[in-house]
Amino acid sequence: MPRVSEQYRTNRRAEILVAAARLFATNGFHSTSMADIISASGLSAGAVYRYFRSKEELIGAVAERALSAADEVFAELLADGATPSFEQALTAILEAISGRIADDPVIGTDLTRIGVQVWAEALRNPELAARAGAAYQRLRGHFAEVARRRQAAGLLAADAVPEQVGAAMLSLVQGFILQRLLVAGTDTAGYLAGVRALLAPAPLGAGR
Amino acid sequence: MPRVSEQYRTNRRAEILVAAARLFATNGFHSTSMADIISASGLSAGAVYRYFRSKEELIGAVAERALSAADEVFAELLADGATPSFEQALTAILEAISGRIADDPVIGTDLTRIGVQVWAEALRNPELAARAGAAYQRLRGHFAEVARRRQAAGLLAADAVPEQVGAAMLSLVQGFILQRLLVAGTDTAGYLAGVRALLAPAPLGAGR
Repeated sequence: MPRVSEQYRTNRRAEILVAAARLFATNGFHSTSMADIISASGLSAGAVYRYFRSKEELIGAVAERALSAADEVFAELLADGATPSFEQALTAILEAISGRIADDPVIGTDLTRIGVQVWAEALRNPELAARAGAAYQRLRGHFAEVARRRQAAGLLAADAVPEQVGAAMLSLVQGFILQRLLVAGTDTAGYLAGVRALLAPAPLGAGR
Repeated sequence: MPRVSEQYRTNRRAEILVAAARLFATNGFHSTSMADIISASGLSAGAVYRYFRSKEELIGAVAERALSAADEVFAELLADGATPSFEQALTAILEAISGRIADDPVIGTDLTRIGVQVWAEALRNPELAARAGAAYQRLRGHFAEVARRRQAAGLLAADAVPEQVGAAMLSLVQGFILQRLLVAGTDTAGYLAGVRALLAPAPLGAGR
């Protein structure tokens, strides 16, 4: 094996990831084999396995792209001790989803389609289930931090549990991903308007 | 073909549905063939095809069970012109999900696992996509009716769009289904507490 530069390795790794993600998005995780990925990448089996030992590792790398995008959104939202509203947090993350995550500039495919495939596959694949569970804990944690700051500022009830509020916020993201793909007419602006109306206090101080 | 009673037909149909649903829940929709279903049902191929012409029809029948359960929940909630709160509506539907839908007494399996499989499969199967889209329009419509009544009672802003609020409510259901299956420690009571905190007005009338 010749000595290769770091740049060479980064490029090969990206090529394999792009080939795999396109197959996952088109044919589903289950129907895509390592042989398909090797063939689509144009590299040798040995070369591909040097970077990724399994489909699960490849899905992990794809998920990491989407999660990193979410991490960046929250890093910006929470910078300098800011206390964003739930609506601000959700707007920023849904815009990232319908933007760079649904239309990833490097992968060139809709990563949310792969996400939905992984949900299904995780029900029968313990390794994927563990990866998905960890990913959602991480996202929930970001939303929980928003809740924690709002609580510290007296804007969320003192007895609310931030992780529980984070779970509900995460649902508003997962449901958006799903409805955007499956229910005709679901658009980001309309969806956010619905969330805003749901989270808004009742008019005239009426009880909810 | 001998003349058969209505009861006989109902029983045969239920047997096939149970066999199919168990296979879908265990192996996934994609990995289950009509031949598998015929074999598991113990009936002849001709008998099975007399009731269901395809896997898609079988999924439709399984989905119809879950949707009927949801219809009943909303029929009760909305009876006599009632105006339930969003929290009441969500509590009733999540209790139905973690009760009779996740533990269907006839099918004997968790219908939510089948739902997640269908989400993924619908991305590559236009017939399933149309069925899933229609099912979610129906559920969204129930939540939209709750929003409409709250709006009529002055409890929801006059400029809110009920269908959009329904989409956000539906997300809180879809996310619950997913997190219940994939994120350890997700329980109905804790999840509802998180939703309640998210929907509650800010303490002391502070801005949100």
